[in-house]
Amino acid sequence: MQYFDHTATKLIEKDVIEFYLKQLKANNYNPAAIYASGLEAAESISNSAKSIAKNLECEPDEIIFTSGATESINTAIKGIVLSPNPKTKRILTSAGEHSATTETLKFLEQKMDYQIDVCDLDANGQINLDQLERYLKNEKYDLLTIIHVNNVLGTINPIEKIVALRNQYQKELPIHLDSVQTLGKLELNLSKLGIELASFSLHKIGTPKGIGLLYKSRNTRIEPLIHGGGQQNSLRSGTENPALVATAAYVIEKTTKFLTEDLAKINKLSNYLTSQLDQAKINYQYIPSNDAEVVPHINAILFPNLRAETLLNVLNIKDIAVSIGSACSNKKSKQNEILKKLQLPGQMDKHILRISLASNNTKEEINDLVTKISEALAKYAV
Amino acid sequence: MQYFDHTATKLIEKDVIEFYLKQLKANNYNPAAIYASGLEAAESISNSAKSIAKNLECEPDEIIFTSGATESINTAIKGIVLSPNPKTKRILTSAGEHSATTETLKFLEQKMDYQIDVCDLDANGQINLDQLERYLKNEKYDLLTIIHVNNVLGTINPIEKIVALRNQYQKELPIHLDSVQTLGKLELNLSKLGIELASFSLHKIGTPKGIGLLYKSRNTRIEPLIHGGGQQNSLRSGTENPALVATAAYVIEKTTKFLTEDLAKINKLSNYLTSQLDQAKINYQYIPSNDAEVVPHINAILFPNLRAETLLNVLNIKDIAVSIGSACSNKKSKQNEILKKLQLPGQMDKHILRISLASNNTKEEINDLVTKISEALAKYAV
Repeated sequence: MQYFDHTATKLIEKDVIEFYLKQLKANNYNPAAIYASGLEAAESISNSAKSIAKNLECEPDEIIFTSGATESINTAIKGIVLSPNPKTKRILTSAGEHSATTETLKFLEQKMDYQIDVCDLDANGQINLDQLERYLKNEKYDLLTIIHVNNVLGTINPIEKIVALRNQYQKELPIHLDSVQTLGKLELNLSKLGIELASFSLHKIGTPKGIGLLYKSRNTRIEPLIHGGGQQNSLRSGTENPALVATAAYVIEKTTKFLTEDLAKINKLSNYLTSQLDQAKINYQYIPSNDAEVVPHINAILFPNLRAETLLNVLNIKDIAVSIGSACSNKKSKQNEILKKLQLPGQMDKHILRISLASNNTKEEINDLVTKISEALAKYAV
Repeated sequence: MQYFDHTATKLIEKDVIEFYLKQLKANNYNPAAIYASGLEAAESISNSAKSIAKNLECEPDEIIFTSGATESINTAIKGIVLSPNPKTKRILTSAGEHSATTETLKFLEQKMDYQIDVCDLDANGQINLDQLERYLKNEKYDLLTIIHVNNVLGTINPIEKIVALRNQYQKELPIHLDSVQTLGKLELNLSKLGIELASFSLHKIGTPKGIGLLYKSRNTRIEPLIHGGGQQNSLRSGTENPALVATAAYVIEKTTKFLTEDLAKINKLSNYLTSQLDQAKINYQYIPSNDAEVVPHINAILFPNLRAETLLNVLNIKDIAVSIGSACSNKKSKQNEILKKLQLPGQMDKHILRISLASNNTKEEINDLVTKISEALAKYAV
């Protein structure tokens, strides 16, 4: 298969499997036990947290290991809502959020009497800053939760500006960042960003599935989502997973080390993709437009003459993996919510395909992809 | 190391690692994706659920995959509390529960205004049925949550009698069973048991860490703990984990198939342990006493002449892994809550060691263990 869906999940590289396997065999005791192997497992987790904290530029005790980004996002949002801080019962967010955020907010709205204020997106999928400013000026919130890199469009939200507005109007308001598409795609310095909470998926950077991170700054208080044995400073109970945690540290270290190199490669691949689309004289348009700040990994491309669903199916049959919007929404027949919010004329939101690249994609694969798109357009274009 | 702490975590067997590794390499796409490999991943998960349901004797759509038993227990209890059913804001439980249950209930008591009624344990660690009956007769509850096999003592609670009492007094009251120490230790027929919810840990039967199960009968409504992309019938969102789910199905199938054989082996080992303790003329006492129904895997043994903590440390130095109570509580210097509730005279609760066996433990290991216990007693007994 030719795989252009690295945004859904990144395939595990060989060295990662080998590392994990070694860990599974040697480092798999219960870290809560007090005999030597248990203490070693606990030590391994502590060292992994230190390594991850170094790479993300925060403190080790600001890292909480979860089962994945969806759990992290739920923990961040519900953790603030249930924390002992006084409440306004109001949360501010954007129209560009992943369903892990929108569904959690819907739950708070329907079951916990919360008011959710939603900032619109501009044509590039970035948050409307004027509207954000008005909201911050006029209302008091318990939390501002916002996506960093849009998972459908690749657009980068201007976090520095958002933090500055927060600092200007509501200094005490905690910000939760959905950083699922940030790791491995942008340089990240958690301490400098000035946010309080950030959620990370790790299978999206190539670990085995089953682990995510929640960054929580030291001064931020949350109620845990999962209560129990008191692991992880009682912030997330449940037997810890030394083998997978060590593998996570290994992959984050590798991702950070090769970030600049990887970005250069993917930039080249992304440019090569457009040059090939041009050369094949294919009618296409980049969403967001060229002036927007985007990550090169996520290529949201509009083909005016063919619905994305048709194109996706034709490519799938040829064993090429691409997607429309996020994987989580592909199976629901309803239109992707984020693309709909771009308000493109003539239902053009239904013509946008997501081609997501990793540095191990090749020019040959892209040639083949463009050939297959070209053939599909020749056959099915309207 | 000689490992007698299989109740904390069971070591992964070679064939399981090999099976999982194969899955990681071949079956690791995002099951929400709609290209062939994504659909195959979804199909694999569906087949795994069918296999697990067959072994646990329930329906595939009654199985929810979680990150572990602590998440399952939190989902069951909070899921009932937040469900749209009318509420009494009262929960009934026992004094023998794991901290995943007690801490969740404490949260409900402190933050959500719940009243928690707790049934005492008898001298064997079994729930006091008379008291349970009185509670059921006199109060209305949202949930009865109870441990099946006590993780510290190995005592089996009389679930059939508990279900019968529930049916007599409050037919509509859902029962959640903490079945973490049930799987692989007792025959299990979920449909026949007459309970509504049951939580399972899978690393305790030898899968890699990071997966648990929640059984939820079809007619039981819960609010999900983790909202998001709508995976697993929206009952537990987050990217599914086809490789680990398939491995779970493999291990459950194997565990069920060899259950009778395994039980016979462990029974023999457990009897051999006591015969060796007798032969070495060691002063010891089984807790619970011989007339109680217990699983042979968990051997809670009281040594009147030596504190368990001392014995544990001496054995640990000799590279023998045993524990006091649950792993989760070993690191906290406070005394084990469940042992304390047995109200033994003269602080004898502090003299109980947990030796937990698996079928691959050997007589030689037990000989060595008894020798080391004997030496420790000779040196440190008071």
